[in-house]
Amino acid sequence: MPTIKDVAQKAGVTVTTVSRVLNNRGYISEATRQKVYQAMEELHYQPNEIARSLHRRKSNIIGVIIPTVAHPFFGELTNFIEFYAYQQGYKIMVCNSHLNRDKEKEYIDMLKRNQVDGIIMGSHTLDVEEYHNLRYPIVTFDRKIGDFPYIASNNYQGGTLATNLLISKGCKKIAHICGNLTLDLLANQRSEAFQEITNQHGIESVTVQTNMDVFDDDQYESILNQLFSEHGDIDGVFATSDIIAAYALKVCRLFKKEVPHDIKIVGYDDVKLASIFVPQLTTIRQPLEDMAALAVEVIVKQINGENTSLENVFPVKLMERQTT
Amino acid sequence: MPTIKDVAQKAGVTVTTVSRVLNNRGYISEATRQKVYQAMEELHYQPNEIARSLHRRKSNIIGVIIPTVAHPFFGELTNFIEFYAYQQGYKIMVCNSHLNRDKEKEYIDMLKRNQVDGIIMGSHTLDVEEYHNLRYPIVTFDRKIGDFPYIASNNYQGGTLATNLLISKGCKKIAHICGNLTLDLLANQRSEAFQEITNQHGIESVTVQTNMDVFDDDQYESILNQLFSEHGDIDGVFATSDIIAAYALKVCRLFKKEVPHDIKIVGYDDVKLASIFVPQLTTIRQPLEDMAALAVEVIVKQINGENTSLENVFPVKLMERQTT
Repeated sequence: MPTIKDVAQKAGVTVTTVSRVLNNRGYISEATRQKVYQAMEELHYQPNEIARSLHRRKSNIIGVIIPTVAHPFFGELTNFIEFYAYQQGYKIMVCNSHLNRDKEKEYIDMLKRNQVDGIIMGSHTLDVEEYHNLRYPIVTFDRKIGDFPYIASNNYQGGTLATNLLISKGCKKIAHICGNLTLDLLANQRSEAFQEITNQHGIESVTVQTNMDVFDDDQYESILNQLFSEHGDIDGVFATSDIIAAYALKVCRLFKKEVPHDIKIVGYDDVKLASIFVPQLTTIRQPLEDMAALAVEVIVKQINGENTSLENVFPVKLMERQTT
Repeated sequence: MPTIKDVAQKAGVTVTTVSRVLNNRGYISEATRQKVYQAMEELHYQPNEIARSLHRRKSNIIGVIIPTVAHPFFGELTNFIEFYAYQQGYKIMVCNSHLNRDKEKEYIDMLKRNQVDGIIMGSHTLDVEEYHNLRYPIVTFDRKIGDFPYIASNNYQGGTLATNLLISKGCKKIAHICGNLTLDLLANQRSEAFQEITNQHGIESVTVQTNMDVFDDDQYESILNQLFSEHGDIDGVFATSDIIAAYALKVCRLFKKEVPHDIKIVGYDDVKLASIFVPQLTTIRQPLEDMAALAVEVIVKQINGENTSLENVFPVKLMERQTT
């Protein structure tokens, strides 16, 4: 095991300097800081976490990494995270990672430098290598990465509720528009449930994936146009977000299909907008506020060195409205 | 004018300690820090900004104060602000102020302590006393406060375009749902334009204000229900946001009024959702991305001690779709 002395020697600085960099204390030039980081990385140096946390200066900042705050689901989630973080004396730094892995990596580096105390990670990036072997306060959202605690709602239950509802309402051919299944997200379990249940009931099904940037709204309309053109006999849609469901409503109007008479639609999330659309969306409600509150609780416990539960899965709820 | 010596004496610490607090450098206990701040406040001490900025350690964090990121307009705005800030090497810290003045004040204190380098302020709080006499990098959004540079779109032009369109389409009695006019926002100019133009044309008008928490969605439906109950002959609605316009669409459906045949609706903002609603919303487009980019440019220039333009007003654009 390399020691702090080895790091100092390799970086050509004193032990005090390394200690200062680790604890983000005193004045250190950016060049020196970089030299020390490099030496630490080359030697795979792991500072003694407990000793470190006793000394380190807290920033009281939590980093929140999400695909984009412009999407209603993440906008509402971030609002709640900020609300509960503030109750605990923390501010939040928001990173819209989109699919930018480098940007996400910078936040992890900030965590290493104690510029943020912890990270709530709900990004959709494909590679998550950077997270492995990290021993910092991190909680993931709808993703399972290494041994980090995670927050999710029961996606399999959500997929089951949505699919069963459409079948019980008499749908014979159901389309499912889901995210990109290449991404390792727990939300994929919605699609698994959909597939299994339609198979069990011998119901014809079509599954369409969005592209990698699942929140690129522009694609939804063309995906749905193509779907309805190729499968004129679809009589049920299970969309993996309320926004996609809203586009389905719009495209139904273009194809002169009446909702719910000709075609039934179920969304997902129950963002505020779900109840404004006409007809009001039937959807699967994720308990966003509770999930945000727990994400903050888990990250703050980690920051304070307390134990936290690893798997935190919330039940979802079917909100039956006017589209089914 | 009090000096750094006076502050040190009052706080019972050395001049070096005060300097460290000012420049956020070296180790300072929280108790000492608080003593120094208190002394500074009591003495109304204003550090020499230029000398200070030469010494101070930048945080590369911009504070963004908005009513709530859960509202689509501010969600999209924050997404763009983060995008452009990141290009310039800045991270953003998001504060959903709602109507909480104390919360907002904390961010100003962070600015004073160099924990954030600047603030983009778009909150809707009633009192803005804390901002006066501040000499820090601040840019306001849709508000004019003291001598701070501000970013806005041309609200008067927006109100004019919306009202003229409704009149030209034959509306004889137009309702206007606006924010709370007690709040000192530039958006109030939309209502001024509405009032002037309907008066000029001798068009009957009803103006309804939302309550202070203008983004409390729950109120919209009851406001519109009451409006349509009391004024069954309204044939035009100018709503001050697309979300309110969407609620108007919903309530029209309840009152069996066909849009645009019986009643015409114009929204405001042109958030992404405006084009998903059926029928698609006619609205006034604010150039959100350009406004966000300039807000970042102005704040970064201030942080770097460069001059910036004080009044930054963007033209708006009428997006005629299916509700008029």
